[in-house]
Amino acid sequence: MERKIFLNESDTPTHWYNIVADMPNKPKPPLNPKTKQPAGPDDLSPIFPMGLIQQEVSAEQYIEIPDEVRDIYRLWRPSPMYRARGLEKLLDTPAKIYYKYEGVSPSGSHKPNTAVAQAYYNKVEGVKSITTETGAGQWGTALAFACAQFGIKCEVYMVRISYDQKPYRKVMMNTFGAEVYPSPSDRTEAGRKILAEDPETSGSLGIAISEAIERAVMDDQTRYSLGSVLNHVLLHQTVIGEESIKQLEYAGDYPDVIVAPLGGGSNFAGISFPFLRENLLNGKNTRFVAVEPASCPKLTQGEFLYDFGDSAGYTPLLPMYTLGHNFRPAAIHAGGLRYHGASVLCSQLLKDGLIEAVALQQLECFDAGIKLAKSEGIIAAPEATHAVAQVIREAERAKEEGTSKTILFNLCGHGFVDMQAYEDYFAGILDDYSFTENELKGSLKEVVDMQPE
Amino acid sequence: MERKIFLNESDTPTHWYNIVADMPNKPKPPLNPKTKQPAGPDDLSPIFPMGLIQQEVSAEQYIEIPDEVRDIYRLWRPSPMYRARGLEKLLDTPAKIYYKYEGVSPSGSHKPNTAVAQAYYNKVEGVKSITTETGAGQWGTALAFACAQFGIKCEVYMVRISYDQKPYRKVMMNTFGAEVYPSPSDRTEAGRKILAEDPETSGSLGIAISEAIERAVMDDQTRYSLGSVLNHVLLHQTVIGEESIKQLEYAGDYPDVIVAPLGGGSNFAGISFPFLRENLLNGKNTRFVAVEPASCPKLTQGEFLYDFGDSAGYTPLLPMYTLGHNFRPAAIHAGGLRYHGASVLCSQLLKDGLIEAVALQQLECFDAGIKLAKSEGIIAAPEATHAVAQVIREAERAKEEGTSKTILFNLCGHGFVDMQAYEDYFAGILDDYSFTENELKGSLKEVVDMQPE
Repeated sequence: MERKIFLNESDTPTHWYNIVADMPNKPKPPLNPKTKQPAGPDDLSPIFPMGLIQQEVSAEQYIEIPDEVRDIYRLWRPSPMYRARGLEKLLDTPAKIYYKYEGVSPSGSHKPNTAVAQAYYNKVEGVKSITTETGAGQWGTALAFACAQFGIKCEVYMVRISYDQKPYRKVMMNTFGAEVYPSPSDRTEAGRKILAEDPETSGSLGIAISEAIERAVMDDQTRYSLGSVLNHVLLHQTVIGEESIKQLEYAGDYPDVIVAPLGGGSNFAGISFPFLRENLLNGKNTRFVAVEPASCPKLTQGEFLYDFGDSAGYTPLLPMYTLGHNFRPAAIHAGGLRYHGASVLCSQLLKDGLIEAVALQQLECFDAGIKLAKSEGIIAAPEATHAVAQVIREAERAKEEGTSKTILFNLCGHGFVDMQAYEDYFAGILDDYSFTENELKGSLKEVVDMQPE
Repeated sequence: MERKIFLNESDTPTHWYNIVADMPNKPKPPLNPKTKQPAGPDDLSPIFPMGLIQQEVSAEQYIEIPDEVRDIYRLWRPSPMYRARGLEKLLDTPAKIYYKYEGVSPSGSHKPNTAVAQAYYNKVEGVKSITTETGAGQWGTALAFACAQFGIKCEVYMVRISYDQKPYRKVMMNTFGAEVYPSPSDRTEAGRKILAEDPETSGSLGIAISEAIERAVMDDQTRYSLGSVLNHVLLHQTVIGEESIKQLEYAGDYPDVIVAPLGGGSNFAGISFPFLRENLLNGKNTRFVAVEPASCPKLTQGEFLYDFGDSAGYTPLLPMYTLGHNFRPAAIHAGGLRYHGASVLCSQLLKDGLIEAVALQQLECFDAGIKLAKSEGIIAAPEATHAVAQVIREAERAKEEGTSKTILFNLCGHGFVDMQAYEDYFAGILDDYSFTENELKGSLKEVVDMQPE
């Protein structure tokens, strides 16, 4: 009984899929925060290269993947798909469970799918240096690797609490040649302002984004790069879903439900959007479940509003499910899911009922991660355990109902650099999380006040 | 231009290859340390299950892999082979470089190839609990994973310095369900004796082996498991080489030279022995280069003697290249290479001139590891960087000589849990190592005195 479904390199997708072309309701435009008018390419050109801006606003259904990008993808793509026979046996479920494993990439997650593409488009426009932020460190590692492929300097602002708690991630970035600074730093106005107010601050992703953008805007040969949320980032991740379609075809199967964790939305979009195309255009009927942490529940308890992508308000206003750009999520180990908003595309699809969302507590997720490790031999990143926990719920429901169903999930990264999280779980020092209504809605008040007419 | 060579699961080898059958000079037998007579199965049965003892003394050319073992191998096997196009380009070499990547296994190295087999043979003989030692943690993690597959309890004695310096490895073992104790511990006589002499001792692999063996001998339902050195361990690793032969066949190539690091000898044997069979039986002419650290140079500066496998003298005497069982190697980060002896099989083959050995300094190895990370996207374990450094030497020689040659190396593990090593390298606090003649030969004196007539 086979456990893995490999594809040949010749099966690497040749095009990224742009779901905007097929969405019944197109996403609302980003707004210039001052004028509240739609932000155009000129608003973005100090930050991003034009090749990526064009993708950000594109309505083309397919965008060709440059040969140079595909060649680097071949270092780890096509990524393997597994039939989770061990987990199925452990759960004694009639459900068939498959997972796409993105942990085989150089940085250990799905992030290089977009990092390589972004570094490439910067390279062809002569950009010498790219700045970015990183929370848990996955994104910074991916961009560091990608920049090394094209000889571009990489400058990473790493949320201070992660910088202190995850030294291995910093060293990985150094190994790929990047410079890493704890954020807030004294290298930017945004950073200095926050340090002056609170020298002991542990930082946040929003602050780090502000710092990285400020550095990019300061220098004409420097651009900024974001690892999730934006349309072009989600676009690049669709290679995951396109490969998955082929792999399940070889396995003679098709998913009834697809599960993925959602932080900004890129790994969820990556595996879901090509299958959602099949729903929209070809009469398929797959369910799509985005899993968020109970400690940062923008999809299930946030509001659909125009909000900033960062803390300092440097980005355009984006129409999205948000908890407010000043929401401070608890310091859970699933750092990649600690973001106040969800991507514009995922938000619109949720609003339109084309995808579902669920919020899970971390103890259930770690328990699921240990089940996966013992049965499948893969130690998942804390973010990825959120998908595993939901898959176990779906598989147990199938068992109760006595129905077989096919479940696919995105195992978006390994947890080798996150073992402290498991240690804390074993030590019993992690708790589940609950909010008061005030805590949850407090940071939304100022956002409501800045909505356009 | 393809970068990866995958095999289907149906290409997983059905048999392990036992090189003893084809060696021109058979290995000398292990001896009972008291009688100095050949040790028989009875000497080993309190420690190992009979299925493994039979393999240890077997002269059969091929031994069938049980279906239950092959089924678990399928979680990650066949492992991928890569054409190192990025590294070739970086080195601007005419050499073709391939690497077999064992880092995709559950524990991140080649170790589960034997751990799963060993757990299986213990299971079928009703063993309830397995003890072992671990240095850097790779072996303990592999055995913890393997025991979880068969519902066997796993008890790991981890060298104290690693236990303190590598907490992530301990947590990985816990995640797979194992109990982990720092060694020396107060759970054994061997441990208590050493703690009484030196309560602050950092431990050693030899001491940890003694503790694990003592625990196994104490309990009739408990057996011991070793991660390298012994014949049956090397046997199980030959799946690496058998797969590699097929993969290179698909690539239309054949290696002129094979390079692998050597600690006890199992990963070196795993990739080399099937190709060495082709030299011995089918007129091939591949070179085999074992790479050891300059800080533990048993192959290049040790002596071929009968010696113990552990510090306390619990094992039979093994005929091998050794620095003496009380040799204390420097605390280099390549913990898997800090062992005083080399396996009996590798030692005999080196003595007979069928394989070569070279000792490399760690700074050259880390520099090679960083080149590999930037060009191929894989951060190698410190042990594995020893192979990379030698491959770079071979590739540069090919360039100087203006000849093309095909190089294959075993990238036996990833370095995600070893980033402290890279950090120390970047910080400039690592040094190369040199010995005085006295330091190197001092621990051999007592070994010379205990040789049989």
